[in-house]
Amino acid sequence: MVSKVTVRVPINIALIKYWGKKNEKLIIPCNDSVSLAIDDLYAETTVYFTTDGQDSVSINGKSTDLTAKPRFHNVFNEYRRTVNQPNIKIHVESRTNFTVAAGLASSAAGFAAIAFALGQLGNLSQDQTVRLARLGSGSACRSVLKGFVHWHAGTKVDTDEESTCDVIPSPEFWKTVRAVVFEQKNSEKDVPSTDGMQKTIETSSLFGHRVDKVVPQHVEDLKKAVAASDFEALGRVIIQESNQLHAVCLDTFPPILYLNDRSRALINFICGYNNKIGRLAAAYTFDAGPNCCVFIQEKDVKPFLQAFADKFEFDHALLPQSIGKLTTSNTEKQDLPLKNIFYSQVGGGPIVVSKQ
Amino acid sequence: MVSKVTVRVPINIALIKYWGKKNEKLIIPCNDSVSLAIDDLYAETTVYFTTDGQDSVSINGKSTDLTAKPRFHNVFNEYRRTVNQPNIKIHVESRTNFTVAAGLASSAAGFAAIAFALGQLGNLSQDQTVRLARLGSGSACRSVLKGFVHWHAGTKVDTDEESTCDVIPSPEFWKTVRAVVFEQKNSEKDVPSTDGMQKTIETSSLFGHRVDKVVPQHVEDLKKAVAASDFEALGRVIIQESNQLHAVCLDTFPPILYLNDRSRALINFICGYNNKIGRLAAAYTFDAGPNCCVFIQEKDVKPFLQAFADKFEFDHALLPQSIGKLTTSNTEKQDLPLKNIFYSQVGGGPIVVSKQ
Repeated sequence: MVSKVTVRVPINIALIKYWGKKNEKLIIPCNDSVSLAIDDLYAETTVYFTTDGQDSVSINGKSTDLTAKPRFHNVFNEYRRTVNQPNIKIHVESRTNFTVAAGLASSAAGFAAIAFALGQLGNLSQDQTVRLARLGSGSACRSVLKGFVHWHAGTKVDTDEESTCDVIPSPEFWKTVRAVVFEQKNSEKDVPSTDGMQKTIETSSLFGHRVDKVVPQHVEDLKKAVAASDFEALGRVIIQESNQLHAVCLDTFPPILYLNDRSRALINFICGYNNKIGRLAAAYTFDAGPNCCVFIQEKDVKPFLQAFADKFEFDHALLPQSIGKLTTSNTEKQDLPLKNIFYSQVGGGPIVVSKQ
Repeated sequence: MVSKVTVRVPINIALIKYWGKKNEKLIIPCNDSVSLAIDDLYAETTVYFTTDGQDSVSINGKSTDLTAKPRFHNVFNEYRRTVNQPNIKIHVESRTNFTVAAGLASSAAGFAAIAFALGQLGNLSQDQTVRLARLGSGSACRSVLKGFVHWHAGTKVDTDEESTCDVIPSPEFWKTVRAVVFEQKNSEKDVPSTDGMQKTIETSSLFGHRVDKVVPQHVEDLKKAVAASDFEALGRVIIQESNQLHAVCLDTFPPILYLNDRSRALINFICGYNNKIGRLAAAYTFDAGPNCCVFIQEKDVKPFLQAFADKFEFDHALLPQSIGKLTTSNTEKQDLPLKNIFYSQVGGGPIVVSKQ
């Protein structure tokens, strides 16, 4: 019998954005969302059980005080209920290979890893695992599957049985897509997304229209683009969804402002780059933070990063080794203080690292 | 007979925002807007006629090449048509006492001054003057009247007869209101609002909802607040309208980003200040640029600026002399590079400086 498991689960970045819950307790979102995993940014998490003591969680080596963290209790209690083992104690040791709380979906990867590990230990079904992850952190449920993951809001408010995930068929298409994540220095966010999205529901007069009319259209557009392997059409949806997330954040009272001047510089650069080459090669998206994630086809990565290096002053040691060396120009450049540039394949799912 | 007139016309800042035209040629806006003039930021403009030569315009001492400026021709030709004097040539010399093209409604004040001066010379009615101003720059028409000026979109698309201005009754209320405008250093904007608003109409999926549903509600809320002399209710509409203008700008493809990190710092400061004192004392608004305009009751100006001085590092010589000296604290402050702080009464209208 497996008694201890270590898993690795990537973060996922929403292409169609999740913002707002129609049921706070059950974590049912107001609208559908779709994501891709960033394979190389992940939580590596070990979970095991004891029969005495207390549940415990450590994140990046630091023990978490669970008293004010109801979501861990929700997940653990739901697991004990599901497997009918009310007395086991659950122990979690999690490490991320990237900065937490920077708007880089760290809690999504963290809770997905816990859920996936528990699923391995308890032989849970995919839907049960998705559900466990969702109860920890809504967007975590999208990290349980592979490829373009579609999280359905469902039509019901009082029960979460319809709020599940499935995969949008995309034969081989996503394998040509890469992510380049520009992580800023000092980018810890000041408005937690859980609080922010609830304020948006309460005060934004544009939000309801987004949920009712815009998102369903965007989901349809994205599905069509994926079915046709049409990167430009996909990229347009990605950019519009990112813009609209930050639009409804701004339309909140008081407004929520995640994008900073460095985000703006990147947006303007990317739009200018696409405009200059005459097609949408690079699609940016920002979650609830200032860090920019660019989805781009593998063939376009090097010229894109070359244009980036022509425009901005930054530490070239951060560039991915696999793309080779970039030429350096002597033109005057804009300063862009970056902490990391992550370069990754996308669409991966969770893996089991070891079992005992 | 008057042959030369000099007028002074203040800029106006929209509380309910104008963004988007349903008729580009006639300059009919998609939605109603409401503004207050900032009395002490104005264009001072001299207009006279000749019977030979060409129309001419100089702005801040610099002669304007009119060949690529159809709006001047529209205004001049409409004036000649209205007064039935097809052969006169119109000469304009205009000076502003503030930076142009910084998102501070300079073209609004400029065209309103031309229209008001022409109205004086040609004995035009108020509606004719409003119309002339509107044909120069949509929002200019709001600078022709006094107080809370309501510019109606009207229901028609092909004729502008309904797109006029009137004044929202506000017995004495607006006389207690002041404006504090924080002009940043280097704040020239990169997206002209005329281009920007058209792109919003074409690409924003939230814009139509704003026009159809939100603005009518905001106009009603504002009128109620003014009728009740309720500054807090007025301030809430002002802030929400500012937020929503920038939200639909962000929802544009590619997005339009007028707010910068200094704008964000001011927004966060103002929201925090209101929150701390437990009422909405300061209402910010941003037009198509990064500069912050705060509407506030006269009694609240000094404590507000004191809190501002406690938070930010800036040149205290810019502070309005009339509020007296502020105490200086030794706490660590955030740098805020300001070019000007304007402090002004609001709601004034155009005046005639001299006639010959």
